[in-house]
Amino acid sequence: MYLDQPLQVYLDDLASAKPTPGGGSATALSCAMGAALASMVARLTLGKAEYAGVQQEIESLVQQTESLRERFQQLIQEDIDAYGRLSTSFKMPRDSDAERAARASAIQAQLVEASLVPLEIVERAAELMQLCQRISEIGNVNILSDVGIGAMLASSAGTGAGWLVRINLRARTRNGSGDQSRVTRRCQSLH
Amino acid sequence: MYLDQPLQVYLDDLASAKPTPGGGSATALSCAMGAALASMVARLTLGKAEYAGVQQEIESLVQQTESLRERFQQLIQEDIDAYGRLSTSFKMPRDSDAERAARASAIQAQLVEASLVPLEIVERAAELMQLCQRISEIGNVNILSDVGIGAMLASSAGTGAGWLVRINLRARTRNGSGDQSRVTRRCQSLH
Repeated sequence: MYLDQPLQVYLDDLASAKPTPGGGSATALSCAMGAALASMVARLTLGKAEYAGVQQEIESLVQQTESLRERFQQLIQEDIDAYGRLSTSFKMPRDSDAERAARASAIQAQLVEASLVPLEIVERAAELMQLCQRISEIGNVNILSDVGIGAMLASSAGTGAGWLVRINLRARTRNGSGDQSRVTRRCQSLH
Repeated sequence: MYLDQPLQVYLDDLASAKPTPGGGSATALSCAMGAALASMVARLTLGKAEYAGVQQEIESLVQQTESLRERFQQLIQEDIDAYGRLSTSFKMPRDSDAERAARASAIQAQLVEASLVPLEIVERAAELMQLCQRISEIGNVNILSDVGIGAMLASSAGTGAGWLVRINLRARTRNGSGDQSRVTRRCQSLH
């Protein structure tokens, strides 16, 4: 679990030629930072006399941004795990027809699984941006830039995660499966 | 130094109501991840027969992206330190005219110092984006999305850091000093 390790270890491993961590986990971490910044601005609005009228809503917003942060933190590792399984399936033996078929089947399945993590990052980044927008409307105006940066990080990381979804799905053969339809439906629901 | 501490500690502190870490350090960390992803794609281009013609340039690019990553890693802490000093100056006593003058003077000076860190993040994010562009042109096409995500993180973090520069400088009084001119000149050179 990279969350329990020094930040330097994550960055060094990200920069290395190892299969994981990769871009998906970086987008999850960027979103976790975005959620943290939204929480910070909301927390610095709590208990302030000039924001007395919005205390209840701000308390609810902190719960939501912290819940999102928790999920983004999990997604850092889930992306690493899913991509690790995909990477392992590419290394399966392909000496016989049976082996080649098993390998192809495993790759197809893992491409879908590896798409689900960045897809969730896209969906939750969109949720986070909405929370950031509301915090920017009613939160502590002295630190408005921090919630703006939070939204900006969520937006760019969500866009990047969207690329990963499309790239993984394009790598699949054109023989669509039920699993692929499941991903496609969720992609379509984003519009 | 957050680099030596578990990632979870940084994220928890970012989400807290503490004065630091804040948005500036998050933009530096996003850029460090962007540089790491650029390094990863370049490293996965080295030693590949189909990229034989660009090996020398890729080696130079890895050196440049790793050098930028090292600097972004330092800037995570430098932003925390600079903002910590600014935060301390706001807490200086203001019971007498002399104390108020000393406090105002310290705040003005620290606002400039606290602007220089995000200003450097903007400048180096622009450098990183240029390196990402070149890596995307000649690097391993199978992991193009990772260098795209690297550029995207650098772009958004650079934009966010630019907001911090402008906000800190607007917080200064209109009595420009030599220090402010120094920052202004560097801002203008970005265009």
